[in-house]
Amino acid sequence: MIGPIGHIGHIGSIGHRGHISPISPIGIFDSGIGGLTVMAEIIKALPCEEIIYFGDLARTPYGSKSKETVVKFSCEIVQFLISQGVKAIVVACNTASASALEDLRQMVAVPIIGVILPGAKKAAEGTQTKRVGVIATRSTIATGAYVKAIQSHNPQIHVISQPCPLFVPLVEEGWLNHSVTRKIAEEYLFPLKANKIDTLILGCTHYPFLRNVIHDVMGNEVTLINSAEETARATKEILSNDRLLCTIRQDKKYRFYVSDEGSRFVEIGEQFLGEKIRIITQIDLGKG
Amino acid sequence: MIGPIGHIGHIGSIGHRGHISPISPIGIFDSGIGGLTVMAEIIKALPCEEIIYFGDLARTPYGSKSKETVVKFSCEIVQFLISQGVKAIVVACNTASASALEDLRQMVAVPIIGVILPGAKKAAEGTQTKRVGVIATRSTIATGAYVKAIQSHNPQIHVISQPCPLFVPLVEEGWLNHSVTRKIAEEYLFPLKANKIDTLILGCTHYPFLRNVIHDVMGNEVTLINSAEETARATKEILSNDRLLCTIRQDKKYRFYVSDEGSRFVEIGEQFLGEKIRIITQIDLGKG
Repeated sequence: MIGPIGHIGHIGSIGHRGHISPISPIGIFDSGIGGLTVMAEIIKALPCEEIIYFGDLARTPYGSKSKETVVKFSCEIVQFLISQGVKAIVVACNTASASALEDLRQMVAVPIIGVILPGAKKAAEGTQTKRVGVIATRSTIATGAYVKAIQSHNPQIHVISQPCPLFVPLVEEGWLNHSVTRKIAEEYLFPLKANKIDTLILGCTHYPFLRNVIHDVMGNEVTLINSAEETARATKEILSNDRLLCTIRQDKKYRFYVSDEGSRFVEIGEQFLGEKIRIITQIDLGKG
Repeated sequence: MIGPIGHIGHIGSIGHRGHISPISPIGIFDSGIGGLTVMAEIIKALPCEEIIYFGDLARTPYGSKSKETVVKFSCEIVQFLISQGVKAIVVACNTASASALEDLRQMVAVPIIGVILPGAKKAAEGTQTKRVGVIATRSTIATGAYVKAIQSHNPQIHVISQPCPLFVPLVEEGWLNHSVTRKIAEEYLFPLKANKIDTLILGCTHYPFLRNVIHDVMGNEVTLINSAEETARATKEILSNDRLLCTIRQDKKYRFYVSDEGSRFVEIGEQFLGEKIRIITQIDLGKG
């Protein structure tokens, strides 16, 4: 049985739970477009929900920035999402999930769901050999958040972490099945193969696009864990436990807010999301 | 003969020229660490000068952001540098040079020198075949700034532009002579070879690190233009024309300001710069 992951914050903080109901929207944010892969899984798992997505295009990416700065940016975004009446917030960004969850939970009274714990839990429960691999950006690996999350379920599990800094630019270049991508994947994944892992967490929102190449390199005996899918599953469970699940198909809308001009966001984002992006608004969080 | 490139702004704007003298420092800024390659060339060309460098680590990179946002960020940094009493400002960032120079010149009364015009001028003067190639990030290419700058010298020159989005992450990964880097370079540079250019501008501050691979792929018959070197040469000439050159070796200091935690900036920056980074201060430009 899966227990609640990423639970309710403190009473008396921002976000009055009395104002929210099952028909309130879910808030999702990321530093950029990567979080749209999480949104796509949430739409699959929760097709009746209204969603507000925030992409911090003016300050993307977060991966190279300090914890203090990532916390500050995340708090600004969460305040905005709360002002829009969301009933739960999905932090669809590995860096913010690794650095800012506790601060955000101190600040607001709605559930805050990160992308790290759900994938870590799935991997910890699934591994037979107790040898789990994690691939992510350099900054996510550096936080140690995946190792901590996996070992909180089972301290016996040996975790092998591998940063793959070229994977995001390769996805953004569209080289999903390029021979160069395969060669880079072989190089990055070699230590994970050598360590005989049986489970591999794709710990970055862009990596599911390289699933085929990663699967080919790792072989059939390694189970790939898509953090986005597990996060969607966790979101559904938390909303259900809190009686906040929307089960009636409403005239649902997906609204998008960005902190810089959004034409490239729309262009690439529609591929990430597999849906049209119709309602998009540029706002400036820095002010006020 | 090289004419003045990037000249003096309007009188009556920020920056009182009366306060500056040959011993005032030069200001240099970039969205991150890339501009340190420009600073390294300026130190070589102008060894007596004091320099203040600003790296906007909290908001790096600028390449994916809108012109409006890049102008806003650049103006904030230039105001800060002026408050530090600089006698000239080098915009050591291709994106800001392509988007913000005119606004910055409207705002301040000291010379503003970008990285695009100096390299473009050198290429326009050097090409025999009148076929010049430019490689840069996708956003720099999209501005058309290099094509415009080259053709302002000679409208007959045919310019072939090629974005190379994977080059910056390859440099930051340290894969300067990796077989994958060679394969990617062959793919990116193929259209430039096919178009029989005789001159190639390295239009991004990171690209001089890939000079060997690019030279090997392009062959001896193609001259590579390093924008950083040309920018240093232009800076020297402008300061000389304005009688602001410092020719007496002072007890010079290099000061560094960054908008986020700077440990990685120091670590990688010292390699970029070839000098120790001793005086570094974190400041928050967003406030006030």
